[in-house]
This record gives sequence, structure tokens and C-alpha cells, in this order.
Amino acid sequence: MLTPSAKALVPFVSVDHMMGLVHHIGLPRVLRELADCIEDDFRRWPHFDKTPRVASHSDVGVIELMPTSDGELYGFKYVNGHPGNMRSGLQTVTAFGMLARVDNGYPVLLSEMTLLTAIRTAATSAMAARHLAPKGATTMAMIGNGAQSEFQCVAMQAICGISHIRLYDIDPVATAKAARNLAGSGLRITACSSPEEAILGAQIITTSTADKQYATILTDNMVGAGVHINAIGGDCPGKTELHPDILRRSSIFVEYPEQTRIEGEIQQLAPDHPVTELWEVITGKAAGRTESRQITLFDSVGFAIEDFSALRYIRDRIVGTPYFKPLDLLADPDDPRDLFGMLARATPSDVT
Amino acid sequence: MLTPSAKALVPFVSVDHMMGLVHHIGLPRVLRELADCIEDDFRRWPHFDKTPRVASHSDVGVIELMPTSDGELYGFKYVNGHPGNMRSGLQTVTAFGMLARVDNGYPVLLSEMTLLTAIRTAATSAMAARHLAPKGATTMAMIGNGAQSEFQCVAMQAICGISHIRLYDIDPVATAKAARNLAGSGLRITACSSPEEAILGAQIITTSTADKQYATILTDNMVGAGVHINAIGGDCPGKTELHPDILRRSSIFVEYPEQTRIEGEIQQLAPDHPVTELWEVITGKAAGRTESRQITLFDSVGFAIEDFSALRYIRDRIVGTPYFKPLDLLADPDDPRDLFGMLARATPSDVT
Repeated sequence: MLTPSAKALVPFVSVDHMMGLVHHIGLPRVLRELADCIEDDFRRWPHFDKTPRVASHSDVGVIELMPTSDGELYGFKYVNGHPGNMRSGLQTVTAFGMLARVDNGYPVLLSEMTLLTAIRTAATSAMAARHLAPKGATTMAMIGNGAQSEFQCVAMQAICGISHIRLYDIDPVATAKAARNLAGSGLRITACSSPEEAILGAQIITTSTADKQYATILTDNMVGAGVHINAIGGDCPGKTELHPDILRRSSIFVEYPEQTRIEGEIQQLAPDHPVTELWEVITGKAAGRTESRQITLFDSVGFAIEDFSALRYIRDRIVGTPYFKPLDLLADPDDPRDLFGMLARATPSDVT
Repeated sequence: MLTPSAKALVPFVSVDHMMGLVHHIGLPRVLRELADCIEDDFRRWPHFDKTPRVASHSDVGVIELMPTSDGELYGFKYVNGHPGNMRSGLQTVTAFGMLARVDNGYPVLLSEMTLLTAIRTAATSAMAARHLAPKGATTMAMIGNGAQSEFQCVAMQAICGISHIRLYDIDPVATAKAARNLAGSGLRITACSSPEEAILGAQIITTSTADKQYATILTDNMVGAGVHINAIGGDCPGKTELHPDILRRSSIFVEYPEQTRIEGEIQQLAPDHPVTELWEVITGKAAGRTESRQITLFDSVGFAIEDFSALRYIRDRIVGTPYFKPLDLLADPDDPRDLFGMLARATPSDVT
């Protein structure tokens, strides 16, 4: 085998590596560091190239490419969303992503992002709650106990000081799974049998349900004054979780309005309904929570910059660890004009 | 290490594997088979999801994502174009791509595409020439002797019966390199010292030059009646190779007009200048070459469907060969809702 030079090799982080890296650093610390990293990127929001994701829809799901760039690095994520996958034992959402240098276009990282997306979504939610939730919040209702739920709980614990989680899912098996997974976390866990019960005493309400349809997980009379709602399940056209009356009572914060108006809870409202961009709260350009009885709502659909932050965090964090391997992804002829010669000289016996 | 199940593993074709596979099959045969594969996909052109590529431009180059889908498979290519890269010993263009199932969004192939793009571009050119070039063509002028040139020559030999190549490049070192690389191909090679000399007696003129600026490689008085021009170098806004007067004398064939009008030679013409889509020639919907004195021009910029064809060809051709390895790219928990549990159970000692 011809040994490719260093510049032809792209560090690759497999699912196994990602799990190893997270254990090596510790999940709560990963969530805290990544939340800071995402917040840093939100602070320089205007510097980013922002384009809505490029979606390919079919009857059963969607495949999306989510690119962005800060002028120095370019990143994109491949992600699918297929609600029916669970029935065949497959993930609803799988993802991988890449980071490249803008100055020469060479990739510098290829990484699994199924796990990383779950982690960055939780880190983003907790980072937003750090700015929007009532001070001293201790209790979170976690409605929808699927793949994302435990990450949300651990992130809210690590970043916002939440100590008590009230779980609810239409499927009690999912609730039992989440309770089991969180048993060693130090969180107090209460399994609830209705959304109404789950939100009792909660200062933060997180909704993360998966049906691709208009659903009403929370109705207006359920939500009391002063809470922070973290709505992460509604993330494509036709998929929402909250009754529009809740939205009308809330101060609404979003990642990127152009995308959220299509995919988020606010697709139920008029296209000019006022919303605040989260990055403006972080930079002090706009107000976040201004009074204790205010209902704040983070209508989160996930944005490319969060994936970018996550990829750049992983790129920095794998240095000096065994949690990646070099991948022979790029052709690297001695003479860049001599791709053909490189191929011709790779005699069959060279190739293993 | 936890062993991921088969559905979590994505076949990966490295540069080394790609070279091995091409040697295993033989380059002329790869080009012929791939040209047929591309022609098959052009035949069902209306079935494809066609979106212009998603480009991220900077001062020094461009990074693009090129997605498409036929409803069953979804493919995309990551490709950069950085003309200044050569000065630092890097490839101007590097690429990789992926193929996924539309029904569940799971990737089924990840592949290097720097080599594969060179091969598919040559196969597309020769496939177009098979429909457009004068019958019995034996001689091709190859203007621009960079990384793409030898692939063009071998494809035109394998698919169109070209036996004589007249090489020209502003840099004689590039011409010498191409001549050396083609020495064992069975092609008769003539190195020329001007474009005028190169096109003498040529029935096909291929231009493949790399400057990111308006250049005039061919002027009007150089091009005689009856030739087929295969223009592949002008492939981004502001980059062309032919004098507009040549375009006005030619019957122009393109891949996807929406993209070619922005990136191809025809960006120099009025936006409503008539062009014919190549797929319509292939299906018999439109005429190709109708008379012997006609100048035909394939204004090729490269389209996502060609990459899709190439990826699906590679997916089929690696079966039963050693020219790929399974990549642990997708998370695969026993219970798809239990991503957290999968992570939690991967104790540090499990991860290698």
C-alpha cells in the first residue's frame, strides 16, 4: 500500500470513538464545554454564512444538508429524519458531519453526529435556559422520553442547576427507560402519568416528542406564569407540540427566524409575529427574561451553527487522544496535476 | 470494543481502495461502464430531484454540496475548487460523496470522489461526444493538460474510438507529463506548442483549463466547421474558455440549463440563448448533430446526477471485492430510543 501523506488523511471520529471521548472527558463536562463553545459562536452570529438547510423530502421522511461557515472553517451536517424508522429498529435521526478549511477546501474532520447532535441539542437547550429560565430553577418537566430526553436532563443539571426531573411519555416504557438511565446521575426523578402531573412545580418545561404531525402536547390552561418552555420536538413543517394560545402568551426566542418560521412552533402564528433571536439576548442587544411572571419559550429547531460549534469542539478535543483514526479520504498525488499518474503508479500489488 | 451491528456500518471506499478497484476492473472498462450508467440516469432525467449546487464562495475558492435523488437513493458530493492550491502542492479540486436510502435515510456508501470525479467527468464527456461528435472521429485536441486531461483522452479512446491526441498546455511541463502518462495507452500522442497547432485535423476539441477568470483559450477564427467542442474547464461564475463568437456559431448542449447559465461558457450569452439539454438528445426528444458542417458544443459544468451515477456504480462494483471497509459512522443502540443507554453502557474499557 502506498502511504498517503498527512495532508491526504482526514481525522475520523466513529461512534465508538465519540463514546470513548465522552467517557474520557465526562458527559456533564462535555455538555458544559460545548454549551460555552456554542455560546461563543452565537456571540459572533453575524460573522457566519447562514443558509437555510437543503432538504430533500419524501413521503416517509427527510434528508438534509446543513452547511455554514465562519470564513475560516466550513462545516456541514448530513442528517435524516424518518419517524417510521423506530418500527424497524432504526434510529429516527442519524447524522454525520464534516469540517473543512475555507482557504484550501481540505476537510479537517469527519465525525459521526448521531450522538453528537443529541449532545449539542441538549447543550444548546441548556445554554438558552441559562439566559431565559427563571433564576433558581430546580425542577424540569421532561415531556417525551425518547432518545433526546436524558441528554436534556443531564445538560439542565450540569449547566442550569436543575436537581429534580419529572418525566412523562405517552409510552410508560420510554419513561421507565429514561428513569433507569438517569438513576446514577444525582438527579431526583419522578415518573408521571400525565403531562399535567409532569409540569407540577416545574420552572422549566421541555417538550421533545417525535410524531410528524400537528400535536398538542401542552394546552394553554396547563402552563402557568413564570415558566421557561424549551420546545425541541417541533422541527419540521407540519410538526408542532404546543397549542398556539401558549405561543401568544409567551416571549418567543428562536435561533434563525427564517428557518424557525417554517419548521418551529411559530409556523402556527402569523409570519410577522414578533420573535427575538437568541444571539441578540446573549450579546445584550435584546432583552431576555425581564419579569418573573413572564413565560419564555425557546422554539428550537436546531441550526447549522450549533453543529459547527460541536464539530470544532470535537476537533480540538480529540488532539492527543486515541479517539479518532486517520481516513484516506483525499487523493494526494506528488504533483497535484498528476492525478492520472498517481493512479497509474498504484499497481495492483500496492493496493491492499 | 462493542461491535456495531451491520446496519450501523457504512461501506467506505478510500483513495487507495478506489485505485485498487479501478486497476482491478481496468480504467477503460470503468469508463465505458460508467458512461453507460450515466447515460441510463440521463435517460430518466425527469425522475431526479434537481437543485442547483449549494455553494459557499470565498476570495480564494469555493466549497460546494451537490445533492440529488431519484426517489430511491439520495446522493451528494462535497467538492472544493481552489485554483491557488496547486502552488502549495495541494489538489485544486478534492471531493468525497455519499449515497443513502431515501426510505430510511441510512447511508449505504461513503467514497472518495477526487479520483471518481475525474473519472465521471471524462465518462460524461465521452458519453456526450458519442451522441454529438462527427462519426468516425479519430483525432482529439486536448487543450489544458492538468489533472483531468489524461482521463479525457482515455475515455474518448475507450468510448468514441479516438486514436490520436494532440496535447497543448501553456506549461510544457504539463504537456510532457500527460504525454508520459499516456505513453502506454495505445493512443498516438502529439505534443503541440500552440492551441492552433493542437486543433489541426482534430474532430473533437476538449478544453480543460483551470484559471478562475475569463480566458479565451479558443478564438473564433481557430474553429473550423464540423468539429465537436467539449468544454469542461469553465465551471464557475467568471470562468470561461471560449470566445463568445464560437458559442454563437455552435449548437450548444448542456446538462442543466439553470446551472450552466451561471457557471458555463454560456454565461457570456443572453440568458435566453437557445440551448439543448443533453438528456433530450439521449432520449430522442431533441436532435443532436444534424449535419456534418455543424459545430456542436457540450458546455459541461458537471452535474449532481453524474456523481449520483458514479456513486451507484461504485456501490454495485465493490460487492465481493476487498476495495472497501466498513466504517462505524452510525449510532446503533439496541433500542433506537435508548441512545443515552448505549453511551452509558459503553464503559471506557469497551472503547478502543
